Amino acid sequence: MGLWFTEKQTENFGITAKIKQTYHSEQTDFQKLDMVETAEWGNMLLLDDMVMTTEKDEFVYHEMVAHVPLFTHPNPKDVLVVGGGDGGVIREILKHPSVQKAVLVDIDGKVIEYSKQYLPSIAGKLEDPRVEVRVADGFMHIAESEKAYDVIMVDSTEPVGPAVNLFSKGFYAGISNALKDDGIFVAQTDNPWFKADLIKQVFHDVQEIFQVTRLYTANIPTYPSGLWTFTLGSKMHDPLKVKEERFFDLDTKYYTKNIHHAAFVLPKFVEDLTE
Amino acid sequence: MGLWFTEKQTENFGITAKIKQTYHSEQTDFQKLDMVETAEWGNMLLLDDMVMTTEKDEFVYHEMVAHVPLFTHPNPKDVLVVGGGDGGVIREILKHPSVQKAVLVDIDGKVIEYSKQYLPSIAGKLEDPRVEVRVADGFMHIAESEKAYDVIMVDSTEPVGPAVNLFSKGFYAGISNALKDDGIFVAQTDNPWFKADLIKQVFHDVQEIFQVTRLYTANIPTYPSGLWTFTLGSKMHDPLKVKEERFFDLDTKYYTKNIHHAAFVLPKFVEDLTE
Repeated sequence: MGLWFTEKQTENFGITAKIKQTYHSEQTDFQKLDMVETAEWGNMLLLDDMVMTTEKDEFVYHEMVAHVPLFTHPNPKDVLVVGGGDGGVIREILKHPSVQKAVLVDIDGKVIEYSKQYLPSIAGKLEDPRVEVRVADGFMHIAESEKAYDVIMVDSTEPVGPAVNLFSKGFYAGISNALKDDGIFVAQTDNPWFKADLIKQVFHDVQEIFQVTRLYTANIPTYPSGLWTFTLGSKMHDPLKVKEERFFDLDTKYYTKNIHHAAFVLPKFVEDLTE
Repeated sequence: MGLWFTEKQTENFGITAKIKQTYHSEQTDFQKLDMVETAEWGNMLLLDDMVMTTEKDEFVYHEMVAHVPLFTHPNPKDVLVVGGGDGGVIREILKHPSVQKAVLVDIDGKVIEYSKQYLPSIAGKLEDPRVEVRVADGFMHIAESEKAYDVIMVDSTEPVGPAVNLFSKGFYAGISNALKDDGIFVAQTDNPWFKADLIKQVFHDVQEIFQVTRLYTANIPTYPSGLWTFTLGSKMHDPLKVKEERFFDLDTKYYTKNIHHAAFVLPKFVEDLTE
């Protein structure tokens, strides 16, 4: 039989994955960190016993966080990632030649350290000269930034533990201040099957602050329900009105120009959360 | 702790759900049947230890199997469901006033019997006067039908056990014969994360027989990977070219006119399977 990891995604439902070996386990200053090798998904990073990323399906999340706002913006130069210490979003951001600087602010340096060691295909671009890595509180970094970024991506853990402030209205107001006048932000906002109330709350909070607010989805098999949502707030540019000539070919496995648009078409019960 | 059911969706990965009670378990003439009450998903039907349907998320599968081909056809009157003994696809078909007769052919009468008893919100329309239920071999029924149906839906189990013939090229050829000259069929064709080869095989088999072949997806959280595919073969009508005036409002929770189109926009790694 061997060792199996089970994540209870709700009190009454979960996923279970066969573990080939555990590379590292520790309680960091902020959360429980486990780096394991699974038989199905390759190496997997767990924080507080929740799957954060796996080698096999990470591309969906990272491509969809990065490329949707980056193509929506006509010329993104300064980009911030809050959280995202595994480096996957940074890797995708660097595929955009307009980007001059990508700042990563993760509160937990251990996530960065062990991702570099055990998830090199994900974290491998953190040393790129266009990247600045800061081990710091993203909430504070946002509060101290003013009109500094074209695009901000919130690649946080769930709204428990160290990320709880990253789902507050005050944080979205801070993000608005940290963005330039035509800035865009996106945050991962969990799934509509188990966390409908959270999505609804965040969507309406963001809507009060940003001119354009949109919800989009992607299929991430190791995340609860397999249907993940992202909430995008934009001061000016609408992701549904990107000019045809803005798009260029990228080396991706999930994102395409057509997926960019289709991702905003929501199943009825999800669309209802935005009304 | 209590009782948990675990479905190994692959050798090395699965889902696990807390069971409140088991209503019924038996080995039928064709498969192992379990009807249980789960804490997360309501009542759940299992066949050969695989989740077939649950009260909470069944609407996705049933709406997406039924409405995509039914709206693609300009005037569907005679409709056949192969498998689908839980009655969910029939319930959705009956929402289309043009349908005069909906025939259900399931090989296992026990599925029908226990769905009526424990899944009334799903099976409740099986007694409708427009419905004819036959406990018979769907493969044989198809072989004996000629130009009989406008739309055929294959709501089968996985390509193991009683459904293995329903994923063969000979079966798709039979379906073509059983359809009228402008007929359409759709089959559930598993998920692209674990069964990419199956999807590729079926798509190309169908493509050799039907004028129009399209793949579409839907999010079904209790099915492997959460991303389910459906393969549609059509003799004439293209699901991507449905006239605006063909659509009418339906009482649905997942399907919308916009989802109809967006469901055919595939993530890059899925699109690659159709090339």
